[in-house]
Amino acid sequence: MKLCRVGPSGQEIPAIVDNAGKLRDLSSHLSDIEPSALNKKSLEKISALDLESLPLIEGSPRYGVPVSGTRQFVAIGLNYADHAAESNLPIPAEPVVFNKWVSCIQGPNDPVTIPRNSTKTDWEVELGVVIGEQASYVSKENALDHVAGYCVINDVSERHWQTERGDTWDKGKGFPTFGPIGPWLVTADEVGDPQNLTMWLDVNGKRLQNGSTNTMIFNVAEIVSYLSGLMTLLPGDIITTGTPPGVGLGQKPEPWYLKAGDVVTLGIERLGEQRQEFVAWK
Amino acid sequence: MKLCRVGPSGQEIPAIVDNAGKLRDLSSHLSDIEPSALNKKSLEKISALDLESLPLIEGSPRYGVPVSGTRQFVAIGLNYADHAAESNLPIPAEPVVFNKWVSCIQGPNDPVTIPRNSTKTDWEVELGVVIGEQASYVSKENALDHVAGYCVINDVSERHWQTERGDTWDKGKGFPTFGPIGPWLVTADEVGDPQNLTMWLDVNGKRLQNGSTNTMIFNVAEIVSYLSGLMTLLPGDIITTGTPPGVGLGQKPEPWYLKAGDVVTLGIERLGEQRQEFVAWK
Repeated sequence: MKLCRVGPSGQEIPAIVDNAGKLRDLSSHLSDIEPSALNKKSLEKISALDLESLPLIEGSPRYGVPVSGTRQFVAIGLNYADHAAESNLPIPAEPVVFNKWVSCIQGPNDPVTIPRNSTKTDWEVELGVVIGEQASYVSKENALDHVAGYCVINDVSERHWQTERGDTWDKGKGFPTFGPIGPWLVTADEVGDPQNLTMWLDVNGKRLQNGSTNTMIFNVAEIVSYLSGLMTLLPGDIITTGTPPGVGLGQKPEPWYLKAGDVVTLGIERLGEQRQEFVAWK
Repeated sequence: MKLCRVGPSGQEIPAIVDNAGKLRDLSSHLSDIEPSALNKKSLEKISALDLESLPLIEGSPRYGVPVSGTRQFVAIGLNYADHAAESNLPIPAEPVVFNKWVSCIQGPNDPVTIPRNSTKTDWEVELGVVIGEQASYVSKENALDHVAGYCVINDVSERHWQTERGDTWDKGKGFPTFGPIGPWLVTADEVGDPQNLTMWLDVNGKRLQNGSTNTMIFNVAEIVSYLSGLMTLLPGDIITTGTPPGVGLGQKPEPWYLKAGDVVTLGIERLGEQRQEFVAWK
């Protein structure tokens, strides 16, 4: 299933993509796509609906974040060997963990704001993992049972803030609008193997990232298991799992970054596409 | 005002401490002490109540977290010069920012769990700042207008996880139960100057931390202003502002850490006290 939330910001309604690719209104069955709607039982109920009987949503509404009420937005760094190399950092012995403030989360096609005085606003196409059931000390073998589905994320980053102002990373990852998520939460059953998805990102139409989740250093099951020993993962939490090479920081002969007016488009196989215009802070 | 939430975990009711130090039930006026109850207008309404007319709460109920629904739990590191020295780290040129996962938040006197295989679980008494009104790019001069009040926090930390497993700090700060908060949210008007509060922490009755918020490197107004340029601070967000010297990591002749059965008590002038028994993960 492809679940989503559509409508003006703050007024989104839950929706689902039918077999013809059209949006159907779920709101008569579900108040929202929120953490409590992501467990197996709730997803099975949605799965049993006759989609043809649901009202069609006309036009091309704005996509919101596909899950509301996310409480923890966890990020994994340097999870593709080639990206670690372009960042001039060693391949990590265990996952690098940092945080994106939940206040940075927004719809997949909403404009992204370049902060005041920022000179190093960068892009990162990433596979997002949406937690469906609480996870604490789960094994790798059982980890994917706690995953509701997957989504596209642009892990927008301010590199100077991330690494040159104290080095705990969190400073440069959570500015408002730095977390475009969606368009859909694609349920795990529909995605199949999360480690075999191609992914790409263009800036102003030029292909800069071109990778696959099959080159992750730590796969989704390992990440979920690992994190569940450091924290409690809650339903609705989102994990962004690292980016393949080709970010601004890794450009040759020298790094370059986003400026107001640039347009970033990105996508992951089976999970949909995003488009963001980058704008100056007003 | 001293606001709090009392009762069994998950069933807390909002309460207020009256002039005689007794708990009064606020639930006929307020469904919960949640982010939307922390703005100036809401606090003024509570302030106008005749406390003597509210039902007394009998006995000694458990204290929950004084604010429900916190979305961001932000932490400042190395914010006391002597603590930076005991950690063998330089005094930071700007605030060190990291994250405590919101799933670690719990009541002030609930047991704290030592993680499996942890050998470096440590204590940190800290002044907590509760945001009342959204803050984005606020000046130092206006920063305290966005603060609803203050509370005691034990920023429980696993030092090995924090600094020897990739160095982004977040790994060692957010294990479940690592965020005791309370007993009260004491409103800013009642606290007065947040930079002149004594603070202390004992392990098994022995005084180990003994400090004052007047030795902070970056004061509360500077921290709120600084953070508001990196992220949007939301009502109900909590900032824990660093610890004075005397943590386990800084003990001489060598560091020592908490084990199951240890009891930590801590407090801050005007903000109340906490008591936690440390227990093994079951």
